[in-house]
Amino acid sequence: MSQLTELSAVKCFGGWQKRFSHASQTLGCDMQFSVYLPPQAKQGQALPVLYWLSGLTCSDENFSSKAGAQRVAAELGIILIIPDTSPRGEGVADAPDGAYDLGLGAGFYVNATQAPWAEHYRMYDYIADELPKLCDANFKLARAAIAGHSMGGHGALIMALRNPERYSSVSAFAPIVNPTECPWGQKALSAYLGDDSSQWQQYDACALLSEAGTNWTMPMLVDQGLADNFLDSQKLSRPLQALCEQRNVPAEFRYHADYDHSYYFIASFIEDHLRFHAQHLR
Amino acid sequence: MSQLTELSAVKCFGGWQKRFSHASQTLGCDMQFSVYLPPQAKQGQALPVLYWLSGLTCSDENFSSKAGAQRVAAELGIILIIPDTSPRGEGVADAPDGAYDLGLGAGFYVNATQAPWAEHYRMYDYIADELPKLCDANFKLARAAIAGHSMGGHGALIMALRNPERYSSVSAFAPIVNPTECPWGQKALSAYLGDDSSQWQQYDACALLSEAGTNWTMPMLVDQGLADNFLDSQKLSRPLQALCEQRNVPAEFRYHADYDHSYYFIASFIEDHLRFHAQHLR
Repeated sequence: MSQLTELSAVKCFGGWQKRFSHASQTLGCDMQFSVYLPPQAKQGQALPVLYWLSGLTCSDENFSSKAGAQRVAAELGIILIIPDTSPRGEGVADAPDGAYDLGLGAGFYVNATQAPWAEHYRMYDYIADELPKLCDANFKLARAAIAGHSMGGHGALIMALRNPERYSSVSAFAPIVNPTECPWGQKALSAYLGDDSSQWQQYDACALLSEAGTNWTMPMLVDQGLADNFLDSQKLSRPLQALCEQRNVPAEFRYHADYDHSYYFIASFIEDHLRFHAQHLR
Repeated sequence: MSQLTELSAVKCFGGWQKRFSHASQTLGCDMQFSVYLPPQAKQGQALPVLYWLSGLTCSDENFSSKAGAQRVAAELGIILIIPDTSPRGEGVADAPDGAYDLGLGAGFYVNATQAPWAEHYRMYDYIADELPKLCDANFKLARAAIAGHSMGGHGALIMALRNPERYSSVSAFAPIVNPTECPWGQKALSAYLGDDSSQWQQYDACALLSEAGTNWTMPMLVDQGLADNFLDSQKLSRPLQALCEQRNVPAEFRYHADYDHSYYFIASFIEDHLRFHAQHLR
């Protein structure tokens, strides 16, 4: 078990917004992540935790500084754990053209099998296994839920679908739900996993839900802005909703007129997500 | 009256977070500023407005994206107007060494009289006169209040002290209250106004309050973190509190253990400031 180094600790809504680094064995590089410890954490009992997975171009700091989640997490006594979106560091491959949708900041929460990505890009194992173990060893954590935005909404959904015993609930803002069928997903999955698209299915929420079918009963909430420029082109939200309806899978999809893909959208509805998770984390 | 160009409009908490540019006659350059229009704005009646002045290195976007003020502004029906912190553009002088505390991002809300600053650095007149007129002509505004952080807290206090008829209340987070006596203030004031420190007094909240004395009755709220690295060295909050107590000027100063100088501090208490102003804006 690697050790945590505390990089910063800032008081926020009566709790502490902290940033840590650690040497990740899964990713083969040093990683940073953020944690919000609500005021209740100092009382010593285990607290429920929400893992938040961020979208393309983000680090662990976007959600921490822009979503305003700490206010409600402080009220509800929920720990927030906010990982980075890809491996990082000088030895880590990046898109040769510096594209925002491949390489650094764009790990897509998969275990890459193709060169040059396979060496470090193992974000699926990092989020599903290494990070929770590390956090369990360093914080007093009770039950877990998971949420995310865009690429991170995709990450949250596939983590929940493949590890239903780990999370009491899942939610997403504008998630990529069918990456095998949209430009962002096809670019990333072909690079990280190769051209055999049968290998991509394990990272596609729609494909996974089709398999799980009516056995899948984890509470799910999805918020989607209708002024989101990526809504249809990048297969956000709607294909998963259609599948849920077709398979009678209980899930709440909410569509919001005029809202876009930004953190202003997330900030507007994050309170609802935290209260949704709090219900199921108890 | 220069025209406004709308650069962006993003839905947020039922209202609109907008960004505008305009040609500023006062500053001799194009300026950008942000506005939050709460849901009540579409009903057509005039709404109260809070001007927010930001601190060193900030543009109009820091407060907009990090403070979480829109949630409460939407509830209370308050318009937020968030200007930039200095003139901008290629022809505008900057600190030769790129220092963060002079030049771009560091206008200190004064009218500069010294070369090379005098040509564009007239932020006092911009905030006191041009921007309110521009906003009055373009939005339906009722009464105004003013608030700010650090250098912007200084700005809010001097605007309120010199224009008591304009604002119903003033508040600040970690304001520089005695810039004539601290390194940030002395560096900026000597550059912008020259070495004759008698010229600096008109921009020093403590000096202005000493003059106004007990005639000054505008409601005032100041929040200050006790883990703020700049608290004593940069003359934040405390000298003004001492003066208020000495002169029997009513004002609330709140000191918060462990809080620092960051937007996490602002986010933690901005709700209180909006509710404070709402009381007096009615």
